[in-house]
Formats: sequence, C-alpha cells, structure tokens
Amino acid sequence: MGPEEFRQAAHELVDWVADYRLKVADLPVRSDVAPGEVIAALPAVPPEAPEPLDALIEDLDRVIVPGLTHTQHPRNFAWFPSNASLSSVLGDIVAAGIGALGITWQSAPALTELEQVVCDWARQLCGLSEAWSGTIYDGASTASLVALLVAREKVTNGSQRRGGLQAEDYPLTAYCSTEAHSAVTKAALLAGYGAENLRLVPPRRPGREMDVAALASSMADDAAAGRRPAAVVATAGTTATTAFDPLAEVCEIAGHYGAFVHVDAAMAGSAMLLPECRELFAGIEAADSLSWNPHKWLGSVLETSLFYVRQPELLVSVMSTNPSFLRSSLDGSVVQYRDWGLPLGRRFRALKLWALLRLEGAEAIRGRMRRDLANAQRFASVVGQETGWTVLAPVKLQTVCVRHTPGEMSGEALDKHTLAWCEAVNSSGLAHLTPALLDGRWMVRVSVGAEATEWADLEALWALMQLKVKAVL
Amino acid sequence: MGPEEFRQAAHELVDWVADYRLKVADLPVRSDVAPGEVIAALPAVPPEAPEPLDALIEDLDRVIVPGLTHTQHPRNFAWFPSNASLSSVLGDIVAAGIGALGITWQSAPALTELEQVVCDWARQLCGLSEAWSGTIYDGASTASLVALLVAREKVTNGSQRRGGLQAEDYPLTAYCSTEAHSAVTKAALLAGYGAENLRLVPPRRPGREMDVAALASSMADDAAAGRRPAAVVATAGTTATTAFDPLAEVCEIAGHYGAFVHVDAAMAGSAMLLPECRELFAGIEAADSLSWNPHKWLGSVLETSLFYVRQPELLVSVMSTNPSFLRSSLDGSVVQYRDWGLPLGRRFRALKLWALLRLEGAEAIRGRMRRDLANAQRFASVVGQETGWTVLAPVKLQTVCVRHTPGEMSGEALDKHTLAWCEAVNSSGLAHLTPALLDGRWMVRVSVGAEATEWADLEALWALMQLKVKAVL
Repeated sequence: MGPEEFRQAAHELVDWVADYRLKVADLPVRSDVAPGEVIAALPAVPPEAPEPLDALIEDLDRVIVPGLTHTQHPRNFAWFPSNASLSSVLGDIVAAGIGALGITWQSAPALTELEQVVCDWARQLCGLSEAWSGTIYDGASTASLVALLVAREKVTNGSQRRGGLQAEDYPLTAYCSTEAHSAVTKAALLAGYGAENLRLVPPRRPGREMDVAALASSMADDAAAGRRPAAVVATAGTTATTAFDPLAEVCEIAGHYGAFVHVDAAMAGSAMLLPECRELFAGIEAADSLSWNPHKWLGSVLETSLFYVRQPELLVSVMSTNPSFLRSSLDGSVVQYRDWGLPLGRRFRALKLWALLRLEGAEAIRGRMRRDLANAQRFASVVGQETGWTVLAPVKLQTVCVRHTPGEMSGEALDKHTLAWCEAVNSSGLAHLTPALLDGRWMVRVSVGAEATEWADLEALWALMQLKVKAVL
Repeated sequence: MGPEEFRQAAHELVDWVADYRLKVADLPVRSDVAPGEVIAALPAVPPEAPEPLDALIEDLDRVIVPGLTHTQHPRNFAWFPSNASLSSVLGDIVAAGIGALGITWQSAPALTELEQVVCDWARQLCGLSEAWSGTIYDGASTASLVALLVAREKVTNGSQRRGGLQAEDYPLTAYCSTEAHSAVTKAALLAGYGAENLRLVPPRRPGREMDVAALASSMADDAAAGRRPAAVVATAGTTATTAFDPLAEVCEIAGHYGAFVHVDAAMAGSAMLLPECRELFAGIEAADSLSWNPHKWLGSVLETSLFYVRQPELLVSVMSTNPSFLRSSLDGSVVQYRDWGLPLGRRFRALKLWALLRLEGAEAIRGRMRRDLANAQRFASVVGQETGWTVLAPVKLQTVCVRHTPGEMSGEALDKHTLAWCEAVNSSGLAHLTPALLDGRWMVRVSVGAEATEWADLEALWALMQLKVKAVL
C-alpha cells in the first residue's frame, strides 16, 4: 500500500475510531459473545487476494466491536482503569507510521533519547529524586520478572555468568505480601527461586498492607537457616483493595540482608503525580527498583510500563549482550535500552506518553485523577450509608470494595449472593464490575478512573447495583 | 481530548505520516545526530499546560525525524528488514483507538479470538501442520526466553513448583550454535542455566549451519557426566549469514535425551510463506516450539512476534496463574493468553497482522518477497563478478555477505578497510549497511527486503560501494 492509498484509508479509519469513541457509552460494557463466536464469524483460511478497506471496516463493526468489553466505556469499573487517552493514541499513530526500529541507539537515536526524556519527565512528575533512571517495558509483569532476576544476580554476584542459579549452594528466598499481584509469584517461579522459596507474608489485616513484623521474622528465620534473602517485592496499591505496603519499613528490613527491593505500583503509581497522595509512597527512595504503568489510570496507550532503577549498571550487567552486528563506536556514550530489559527490539514506545503529556498537560491529568478520587470517596460514602451495604477497605485511591449483606446472610450463601448481583450488573451491559476475594470471601470492586467516567455514571451504577441486589434475592 | 478534537488532530497526523513516507527516500538513511542531541533539543521539564498539536508536529519535524535512522527507507540494508507496511499501520491505528485491554478472554473476547485466528492463518501460510498453536509476543528474545523456561520445567518436571532450579541436583544444559542470536545466550542466562551450562556448538564451516556431529557429541558428553541436556535452540536463518541449522537432525539428536527443541526463525520465518523456500525448514515439525517475526520481512508493525508450540498445556503449566480477580465461569472453554507468555496484559496485537494479510493478500506479500530474493541473487552475482569483491556465504534468502579485498590485504588491515568503506557508505546518508564478524573478521551485510527497495536501489548501492571503496583506499 502506497502513501496516498494509506492517507485515504487512514482518514477513514480515524473517523471510524472517533465515531467508536462517540458511541461507546451507548454500547453494552461487557461483550456477551459466547466462546468461539468471534472465531466462527471469521474465515478459517487467510485471504490470497487483497480485500478492500470496506470489508475490514465491515468486520470491525460486525465482529470485533460486538466482541469487545469496552475498556474506554464511562461505566467500565472492572479490574482497573486502562485509559487509552486519544491524545496518546495520536502519538501511537506516529509511532506505527514512522516504523522506527529500536535495537541500538544508532538504529533510531530519537527513539532512545525520547524514551530517556519522557522517563525523566514522568520521574519529575512523580516527585522522585534524580537517583532514578527509567525505561519503558510492556507491563508490570515484565518489571517484576526483571527485578527478581536482577536481585538473583546481585545476591549471587552474577551466578548466570558461572554455573547459573542451579549451581548455587544456598537457596535464595523472595518475599511479597499475600496481597501482591499474581505476577509476582509468576516472576519468582520463572526466575528460578521456586515456590518453596517464595514467602507470602500475611497482611496486618485481611486485604491490608504487609505485616512488616512478619516480614522481619520470616527473613530472620531464612537467614538463620542458611538461606539467602534476595528480594522483597513491595506493593504500592494492591489489586484487590489498593492497600499500600509500608515502603520505608520494608526497605529497612530488607537492608539488613542486602536484599533487593522492588516496588510494584502498577496501577497506583499514577497517584504519585498528586502531591497529596505521595505520603502513601513514603520511603520509596530507599527501594532498588520501581514500576508503574502510565497505560492504566494515567491514560497512555498500552503497552507503556515504566521501570526505574537506582543502579542502571547493575541492571545492564544482568541484561547486556554485545554481538558484533550491534556494536558501534558510540557504545560507551549512549544508552542502549536493549541492555535494560528482556527484548532486543522495541517500537517507538515513548511517543504515546510524550503526546499524552504534551497535549493534555500535567495539570489537566492531575485534575482528572482528582475528580476520580473525589468520585470514589463520594461513592463510598453513599454506599456506606445504605442499610445492608458495607465498604470493606479504606478507599486509599479510586477503588471502592463493597459487599451487600442481606440480613444475617454469611458464608457460601453470601458468596453466592455477591457473585449473583455482580453478574446481574454485568449482564445488563449498563456497567461492568469485577469480584475478588477478600479474606476468602467474595466482594465486588468498583474501580473508578475510566477517563470518561463522571459522577453521573457512578450514580447510575449505584442505582443499578441496588436494583440488581433486589432482583437476585 | 474528545473524539471530535481527536478526529481533526488524527487527520493531521495521518497526513504527516503519509507525507513522511512520501519523502523518506530523500532523507539520509542514517541519522547523523550526536549522542545527547535529541535530549538537548527537548525541554528538560514536563509541560504543565496543554500544548497545541502544531507544537508536537513542529518537534516531530525539527527533532524526531532528523534523529531517526529510517527503517522504511528504500536504501535501508542494515540489520534486517523491519517493514511497517502501511496496511498494517492501519490495523494498529484501530488497536490504539479501541484501547481494548487483553488480560482475560472476558476482558476482550475479540482480542483473544482474533489472535487465535491470525496465528492460525499465519500457520497455514507457512505450511505448518495443525499440531501448532500460536500466540503473539513482542519479539523473538521473549520467545527464546520462554522456550528455555519451558524446557527447564519440562526436564525438571516442574521444579518451579518446588524448590526451583536452585534445588536441582544435576545441572541442566542448553545448546545452540555459535552463530545463534545473542538473545539465545541472554535467554539461557536469564533462565538460570548459567554460562557454564550453555554449549555453543560450532558450525560446519565459519558462518554456516550447526555441526550436528558436534552437537551429538556435546550432548553425549554432558549426559555421560551426569548433566541433563534440556534444550536445543536451532536457528533457521542466522543473523550474520542466514544459515539454516539442519532441523531434522537437530530434533533427532535432541530426541534421544528428551530435550526441548526451539526453532528461532525470527527473520527468516517469513520465507516459509514461499513453498520454494520450505526445504530450508525441513524437519521443523519435530520441534517443540518455533518463533518468527512478521514485524520483520513480512511487514507487520512492531511488536508482532509469533510463538508456536506443539503442547500448549505444557506452556500453560509453566506460565499460568489464577488469581481470584481474573477468574470467570468460562475459564475452561476459552484460551487465556495471559497463561501463554510473560505479560498479563496485552494490547490488541492481532489487528496489525490481520489488516496486513487482508489488505495486501498473501499472494502480493509472496510476490514482494520473491522480488527481494531475486534482487539479492542478482546483487550477489553482480558483486561476485567484480575483481576484489567476494560474496562470503551462500545467499539462502535476502542477505548478501560481502567483502572487498584490495590486492593481498588481510588481517587487521583488511578489517580496517572493511569498516572504513562501510562507514563511508553509511555516512553518505545514501544507503545503510551493517558490518558483522565472520570467522573473526569483519564483513558487510547487505540485507535486502525493505518494502520500498527495488532493483534500482541496489544498483545505486553497488555504485556507492565501489565509489567509497576507492575513496577510503
């Protein structure tokens, strides 16, 4: 396809995208397609001859849109905000259009250096010190994996350059709260620690922050038994309840053992842009690495996950390779992001965050997040005042955890009721919520923060929740 | 930014992209910015107030474009083709615009199922059997890492669910050719095998395919010494010379030890679309996993790397997590791609490959690749007939490895000459080539296959090479 044909087709698709965003509020939030329905609606064999753009657009409307749960919908309260702000989409259009290849600094200097610039802009906006150097990953799962790999190599003084983790005599142990994201467990397993060497530290109360006394005692026990405490992953904003592990205490305890501390702030990290929220992250400067996802609440298009380290040379020592075909005379004087993470090649990831920050401006982004915080507080207050309804955890940011308890209902009957009214809300198509376990019992998370969500959407949700609770009783 | 403001801005940027593609042939292929120049040209602090689109576009023209080495340039012969076909860009615009979130099937059924569809389309186009199930990764480095992790867990029968790799008594060993991509070494180190347990098997001749007798002997030695051969990474199309390891023999040898075989066909995999090239991949059906990158020669926008396995249940057993907030009643009946790789969340990656295949059609894509194969053969023939010039390796696909030897020059003097004329070509801005080591000596790779490259571009390159060789002598 030549540039002129592209120009015409892209104009059509841009209109399609704008029209989609205009109508998304009127679509059912959750797709009700059955498993296999999308597959069945598409040809089983690939096209030999070119198809016209109209055929593609027709399938977008006929198959793809009905097959989507609409993340950008104003009444999407499921999982967490995953805003693809249209200003960020603009940056991503340029990234795709340029088609730059980031494998070395030389292959696309601006791709590397703009990533340095926007990582530093984001650092400043978060109130983080100049000690942090950043890069962009695809997501926080990758960040947790990299952090646990770096911790492994730090504590073993580079085992991978010798006989590997398998040649180590004393087992390394890793620590996180039971409330940490499942990606942390996955990362510990993939990094080779083994499930038996991952300590799931209990929270102070169900769903709350890590019990640091339990962490201290667990690390002491391991050290006394000849194991080597290597890494602690602290969570700033848990998935279920947005609880914050006490970072200062975690870092102090870990420091006794020389253990690496990674802070997983995937969703909540955006809140660091708000000075009034920074107390939640107190102590973060003592950590070794930190990740948060501008592709969640902040509004950058997926996949924009920031990973910051205090010792880039340690990261590079674990991740670097230097094959002949990638060498250049500039190697010592530039950043080679291929040595900062798992992939060699990358697309021009920085453009979508750059466009977001420039076209929106930091003040407007902060204003939007403050709107969400206020809406979440107000929603919690309204729900908490209604008989039978409980707000189950402190509303630290924009997530409200609720449960409806009819009379004396408890145990499995209550679980069944919770899942039933949540499903009734979701199957209405008018709003989308996700249930999660808290202390072994189901509750429902109302995750406020879609860019389009206003208070009227939360009012509508609340009316719907009350209606569906009655309907399922 | 609202949909109407986006519509207007996106139209402007689409025109900017089309104009960029129209003029790219007239730009210097390689950027000549100095390290730090892009950073210095941009504000050190983030914007508080929104900026107009014009300011962004001005910086694209003033800073970003001059800071790019132009991957889509018709005289880009560096590294490997990394085509962002404009038809694929269209699909990626839709992906960014929809802003779907792939974390479970339910969060975006069409995102998951379209990925199943296009992975299967690509499988059929490659002539691979129905035994393969695919998913999309960011790149082949991730594929190699995942393959080595799965191999580790297969051979240890799930060590990560116990004490991890560190608790294993007998070391696992992994094998690849010395010509394998640096990402394979990186993957083996990160997966915990350790450098001492990675065997770099020599090629039959410098720069050629793996010596399978050496592989057999190395595996036998390890097994005899109580080590456990766990994984072989075979390369189908090496980076330096596009050599093909003999897959049938590699798989047979590995089979004696129950070792997992991964085929890294990152660049060359696109050639499987051409029936006349499939002989190069003979034996691939006996491998356990396979990766190739439609974001290279084929033309899909970065990051589109296909990863196929024969036993998805094994992959899932290594990669799966099942936290409460991601569970649904449909879990048994749908594919959950979060359990097929490292990341939890993904953007709508399939759209860019879907759009490419539909808007171009397979036959036209094959035609373009056949043009490149013919151009590479013709170029090799022209160069090989000229006094002083040598084509150093068989031209299996689209890469031509060349050296110019003035008189009896050899050793370091020859290296210096090679790097000098290559740099002279690159600094002219008229074409871009990358040097690489072959048997310890520098040569220059001419990687044909940019979508815009026609024979006239290769003629121009050849004239330029001859000119610069004289200029540096």
